[in-house]
Amino acid sequence: MSRQLKLGAVLMGVGGPGDHDTWRHPEIPGDASVDIRWYAERARQAEAALFDLVFIVDSQFITPDSPPHYLNRLEPLTLLSALAVSTTNIGLVGTLTTSYNSPFNLARRLGSLDLISGGRAGWNVVATGDGGTAANYSRDEHFDYAARYGRALESVRVCQGLWDSYEDDAFPRDVATGRFVDPDKQHRLDHVGEHFSVRGPLNISRSKQGRPVIFQAGDSEEGRDLGASVGEGIFTHAPTVEAGVAFARDIKDRARAKGRNENEIVIMPGVTPWIADTDAEARAAEEHFRNGRDFAKNLAQFGRPFGWHDFGRYDLDAPFPDLGDLGKDSFRTQAERIKQVARDERLTLRQTVQRFTAATPAPFVGTPRTVADRIQEWFEAGALDGLNIHITVPSVFARFTDEVLPILRERGVVRDRYEADTLRGNLGLPIPENVHTAARRRTPVPA
Amino acid sequence: MSRQLKLGAVLMGVGGPGDHDTWRHPEIPGDASVDIRWYAERARQAEAALFDLVFIVDSQFITPDSPPHYLNRLEPLTLLSALAVSTTNIGLVGTLTTSYNSPFNLARRLGSLDLISGGRAGWNVVATGDGGTAANYSRDEHFDYAARYGRALESVRVCQGLWDSYEDDAFPRDVATGRFVDPDKQHRLDHVGEHFSVRGPLNISRSKQGRPVIFQAGDSEEGRDLGASVGEGIFTHAPTVEAGVAFARDIKDRARAKGRNENEIVIMPGVTPWIADTDAEARAAEEHFRNGRDFAKNLAQFGRPFGWHDFGRYDLDAPFPDLGDLGKDSFRTQAERIKQVARDERLTLRQTVQRFTAATPAPFVGTPRTVADRIQEWFEAGALDGLNIHITVPSVFARFTDEVLPILRERGVVRDRYEADTLRGNLGLPIPENVHTAARRRTPVPA
Ligand SMILES: Cc1cc2nc3c(=O)[nH]c(=O)nc-3n(C[C@H](O)[C@H](O)[C@H](O)COP(=O)(O)O)c2cc1C
Ligand SMILES: Cc1cc2nc3c(=O)[nH]c(=O)nc-3n(C[C@H](O)[C@H](O)[C@H](O)COP(=O)(O)O)c2cc1C
Repeated sequence: MSRQLKLGAVLMGVGGPGDHDTWRHPEIPGDASVDIRWYAERARQAEAALFDLVFIVDSQFITPDSPPHYLNRLEPLTLLSALAVSTTNIGLVGTLTTSYNSPFNLARRLGSLDLISGGRAGWNVVATGDGGTAANYSRDEHFDYAARYGRALESVRVCQGLWDSYEDDAFPRDVATGRFVDPDKQHRLDHVGEHFSVRGPLNISRSKQGRPVIFQAGDSEEGRDLGASVGEGIFTHAPTVEAGVAFARDIKDRARAKGRNENEIVIMPGVTPWIADTDAEARAAEEHFRNGRDFAKNLAQFGRPFGWHDFGRYDLDAPFPDLGDLGKDSFRTQAERIKQVARDERLTLRQTVQRFTAATPAPFVGTPRTVADRIQEWFEAGALDGLNIHITVPSVFARFTDEVLPILRERGVVRDRYEADTLRGNLGLPIPENVHTAARRRTPVPA
Repeated sequence: MSRQLKLGAVLMGVGGPGDHDTWRHPEIPGDASVDIRWYAERARQAEAALFDLVFIVDSQFITPDSPPHYLNRLEPLTLLSALAVSTTNIGLVGTLTTSYNSPFNLARRLGSLDLISGGRAGWNVVATGDGGTAANYSRDEHFDYAARYGRALESVRVCQGLWDSYEDDAFPRDVATGRFVDPDKQHRLDHVGEHFSVRGPLNISRSKQGRPVIFQAGDSEEGRDLGASVGEGIFTHAPTVEAGVAFARDIKDRARAKGRNENEIVIMPGVTPWIADTDAEARAAEEHFRNGRDFAKNLAQFGRPFGWHDFGRYDLDAPFPDLGDLGKDSFRTQAERIKQVARDERLTLRQTVQRFTAATPAPFVGTPRTVADRIQEWFEAGALDGLNIHITVPSVFARFTDEVLPILRERGVVRDRYEADTLRGNLGLPIPENVHTAARRRTPVPA
């Protein structure tokens, strides 16, 4: 079968119930961000539409100005475990930071989700952008980029090693002889690295997909290198088809240079489609959504990449202020891009805020056919391998699943049934062989 | 209503499917310890019998000699979240160590479980006995007792503070005005302590039981003090009714000395009942279970409290060896008790192993009526407020729920319907008032 478009659903994403004003919508309960039934219903809606995965974002640092779903949110892995028993085929991808978690704990929690879900777990590896998070974890300062991404790479490698603690035939469980475990197939890791020392073994066996799928999100040089080194899925933004193609090329070139097979990386930008009976209506609705947000809230939110800098202190209609290297240890890539655009286009602060608080890139807006055409065009151009759809109001998402997807299905662009009941199986990713089994295969015991 | 006996179910406990040889029993799947369906069925069995809670034990350090459920186990909080959506009234208590977790993470995960379950979460606070765990977390050595229990107490206080980050009316979610949060009702913690600094606020609101219920397990002086300071439930062992009464008195005296109300502490020893048609048959079955275990496995397991000391090196029939202070930083209380008994009773190593690897204290063995009588006697003597029943094979547990409990129900000793759908409600514990709301009540804003 030819390559098909992969689909993720961001259950509490940009423009969704947890966004600034969307909770006022009649279809959305005010406490949706902490209501497990809301998530379970959306996950089932996505599963019924044969999505590959649901995606849970995360953050830990808040101020009173944070958007609703930041203020009050379920922890991703407890949330996903509950969804594991409410669904059967859809993948379950949770965001967990390597800056404020120990790899042994990460490996356990993700390995446990992978077993509970029968091989549907994925991990969105992030390094935490909000520097203020440090103060919740007994640190005066956030890690700098080198440490953040150094910890991230080392954490992923440690987790992958721990997930191979048991070979797949480590448990004979032979009732007749009483032999439960084969001690030769339980392995310590004995990792000693720059950031962590981890002995192992992990007290958990592999699921039927071998290991949770590694996703990565973070667009800096360091972030792209991490994705190219270990990412099997990449979450990103793609404002234009050209930018998407360039980003995908860059990631896949880097991966090839590291000796990886570029076909084993699925690039999935996040998008918020807007669908209506005519293109003009859809554009108006999207426009309304983007501009309808309260400017004061946007201004507060705008400070986030700069370490929640207070922009209320500047003249809104003066040129964008000179901020030096503000943001270098929080969301540096985003902060630098904003400064650059403001400088290049000589924007005022107000104009800059308006430009960058547009909640979504606008390309996937129009009639079902327009949106289907646009998706197919981007997909065929190589700007993406999949889409991560931000769920807004359920009925808008339903227009996507019930009107856009059937067109793409008809054209063979998306699946018409699940190929597998594991996340790897549906994403077309190989099941990694256990490293110890592979070593045993390469150097067989002399007869 | 007069005080009633509380009931917990240890889903993977001593004598259960994860114990050394029990996995060979035809009613138990060999992979029960990682099979979510097994846990869900047992939880529903306990809920149908109106149990207060299910209890998940934990450990993180393994060798090839560890019992099956140690070798391969689900992480407690991911496991309990899945159970949260498979049950409606039963409490969900998970063991999490304060030695290898950050309090902010603990508060989040437990707070999230508490919301997902609608106020049924409990936390069994432990400080990790297996010193080898340290090597999984980048440490050369385990913490000593002072640090272990110092961290434990400080972690609980920090979590309780974080759980009060939002007052109960912090979210007006007023659709008309667009006011989602009341910023005056979101609170930082700004904790700076001996072991942790935690700024807060936590990004999660309180459940309808206010805060997760704090359980404690650990019998040393330091452990008892922790239980008396913050424990609302105490898990323990009670070999005899006298020992149980003495332990309960000691905990409640300590709690009163700290200014607490002793009626707000529920003491629940773990027990493994054996039930048969005659007392003699039940005793024989229990005897068979205790002695049927493989001596070599018992010997390996016996080393655990002494830091997995290898006892295979000693003469089994010589007097119990002099071990100095071996075990002082692992399970000190248990290690010292074993040394003392071996010395006082002049036991050989073999005799000591036999004595202490009896998997269970034997009092709750007999016909349904014998077991019901014994439970009532211990309860009325003040040796316990509840029982934590180790589930062995499902049909044996069914004899407990279907034959012992009806006798106790008839006598008014156990409930005949759930009083509440929160764990606090069923345990008869008060909902703690939010500390900030309380402060506001005490010093009202002048009109
Ligand atoms: C599409 C996308 C989604 C992300 N989602 C999260 C998230 O949910 N939680 C989080 O802490 N960071 C998230 N990140 C942030 C990154 O982990 C990173 O810390 C931040 O973007 C700064 O790093 P960078 O300069 O490499 O992008 C996301 C980044 C991107 C590009
Ligand atoms: C009844 C009981 C149950 C316990 N359950 C656990 C457990 O599931 N996981 C764990 O790490 N420790 C558990 N502990 C161990 C304690 O946390 C403690 O580390 C150990 O007992 C040594 O401390 P102590 O000398 O204070 O008892 C338990 C202790 C008792 C008494």
